[in-house]
Amino acid sequence: MTKELIFGHQNPDTDAIAGAISYSYLQNQLGMDTEAVALGQPNDETQFVLDHFHQTAPRVIEKAKPEVDQVMLVDHNEAQQSVSDIKDVTVTHVVDHHRIANFETAGPLYYRAEPLGSSNTVLWKMYHEEGIEIPSQIAGLMMSAIISDTLLLNSPTTTDTDREAIEDLAQLAHEDYHTYGLTMLKAGANIADKSAAALINADAKSFEMGGQQIRIAQVNVVDMDEAVARQKKFEAAMQQSCQENGYALFLLAITNVLDSNTTMIVSGDQSLLPKVEAAFHQKLEAGRMSLPGVVSRKKQIVPPLQQQF
Amino acid sequence: MTKELIFGHQNPDTDAIAGAISYSYLQNQLGMDTEAVALGQPNDETQFVLDHFHQTAPRVIEKAKPEVDQVMLVDHNEAQQSVSDIKDVTVTHVVDHHRIANFETAGPLYYRAEPLGSSNTVLWKMYHEEGIEIPSQIAGLMMSAIISDTLLLNSPTTTDTDREAIEDLAQLAHEDYHTYGLTMLKAGANIADKSAAALINADAKSFEMGGQQIRIAQVNVVDMDEAVARQKKFEAAMQQSCQENGYALFLLAITNVLDSNTTMIVSGDQSLLPKVEAAFHQKLEAGRMSLPGVVSRKKQIVPPLQQQF
Repeated sequence: MTKELIFGHQNPDTDAIAGAISYSYLQNQLGMDTEAVALGQPNDETQFVLDHFHQTAPRVIEKAKPEVDQVMLVDHNEAQQSVSDIKDVTVTHVVDHHRIANFETAGPLYYRAEPLGSSNTVLWKMYHEEGIEIPSQIAGLMMSAIISDTLLLNSPTTTDTDREAIEDLAQLAHEDYHTYGLTMLKAGANIADKSAAALINADAKSFEMGGQQIRIAQVNVVDMDEAVARQKKFEAAMQQSCQENGYALFLLAITNVLDSNTTMIVSGDQSLLPKVEAAFHQKLEAGRMSLPGVVSRKKQIVPPLQQQF
Repeated sequence: MTKELIFGHQNPDTDAIAGAISYSYLQNQLGMDTEAVALGQPNDETQFVLDHFHQTAPRVIEKAKPEVDQVMLVDHNEAQQSVSDIKDVTVTHVVDHHRIANFETAGPLYYRAEPLGSSNTVLWKMYHEEGIEIPSQIAGLMMSAIISDTLLLNSPTTTDTDREAIEDLAQLAHEDYHTYGLTMLKAGANIADKSAAALINADAKSFEMGGQQIRIAQVNVVDMDEAVARQKKFEAAMQQSCQENGYALFLLAITNVLDSNTTMIVSGDQSLLPKVEAAFHQKLEAGRMSLPGVVSRKKQIVPPLQQQF
């Protein structure tokens, strides 16, 4: 049995970290030899989750090939969101809930994606299909991942399967998921003590659209006014990131986890701004636009942009 | 509920046709509105299967968009193997057992691929997971697809899951799969009354390798000498197909279904022949090479070629 590493995307969120841990446990129960690792340190929310359920953060790796020939991906598939040397290893398994893009293999693989609220909801189904019991602490991580990705079941990505999974996992984890979930989301929404540069990079993903690199970051907050007051600093940091990394555009979605509304700030190539405005059917005013009810990058931000590019 | 079409790849084989029918039945039982269609007429083997289990061949479509906005793919994902206007419709579901390449979506989807012997083995698992009973005639089609893709469980792509599935499906279909399977494979291996051009196109797939289009066809036979005697005619047809369609290379794998050996004939850009020879660790002699034990395009032909290109 050759050892494989399992990891989520760069700038890992709770679904990425919890998914690596829960998938690794499942695979090892099924007889594989896997280790959950991560492509970055846990963010505040994820650290709160790990502490709450007495788990240690997965070891951070920079490259995969020096350690293994084969890897499993959770919560992503696009090469630019994965480990830097992804081209040098064979992807044997993917469990995801995103679109598929910039992903190619030479041979057959196990690929399981479903349009559900979180990768951990897919993993919850897989545990059930395989008849493997979910330990209480892992159930807590998986429940947290669903809360995180669906903003406590408020995102339009939320499905009945997510609701069923969270009820089951909450019971296994001995938690009231609603009370716990609010505390958890607030733990990840504290922006006061972080720099603009840190905030725009914490949960940022790159997408190839029309041959250009588009960077889309999301920041969860509980006080929108506090965030908007820092707009100029965000813009400066985004502009700098575009220059340093060659992004054509940098979009920052600031999402209020309490009322599920988003304010979006855009920096980068000004000639592309009309495409952004067309995607969301409104004009940028003072460099930002209000997107009521928008909480999902995957479902509400990427597809309309993709259509324009 | 918006109607969706379900289809397998161009030049459909038994797994593609049976997969469309069996997936459509499953989806409709789950409350979807789907129709199984095909991107071509059934080949001899598939027609034998359809006749044997009293099923009619799925309607052949040229384009999807005039009829529907959304489609489900079985047994393939690469755009060049799919319906000609695949870019104009949304792929909502894929059930497959091949590598992933040249496939991209704007939004999340259901994607289920497993490295099993046939797409119908994946579908068999899905029926079980959903608790949907497989009707006898559909079980017969699914069993036939596994026999076809694994050459009666002889291909190296065969897994324990395929063996488990075929036993279960044979019971549901009231068939001795071994006796039936040999008859079925022979029904598809009659090449005497077909032109070289028809034979090289019947089960041919295009692959993008190193930016070039590589065409790989497979023909099942029960008499290798009879096939090799027609080598010059095959080469002429392959050469013409390269010129007409811009393929850099055309490989024809002639597979004896009785002893699981393959003879490969290669036409096209002569400067690329060393890559083919390197892929299979032997020289072409008289324009062909013998590949003992090679029966799987997906597992034994595409990956070594991909590595060279």
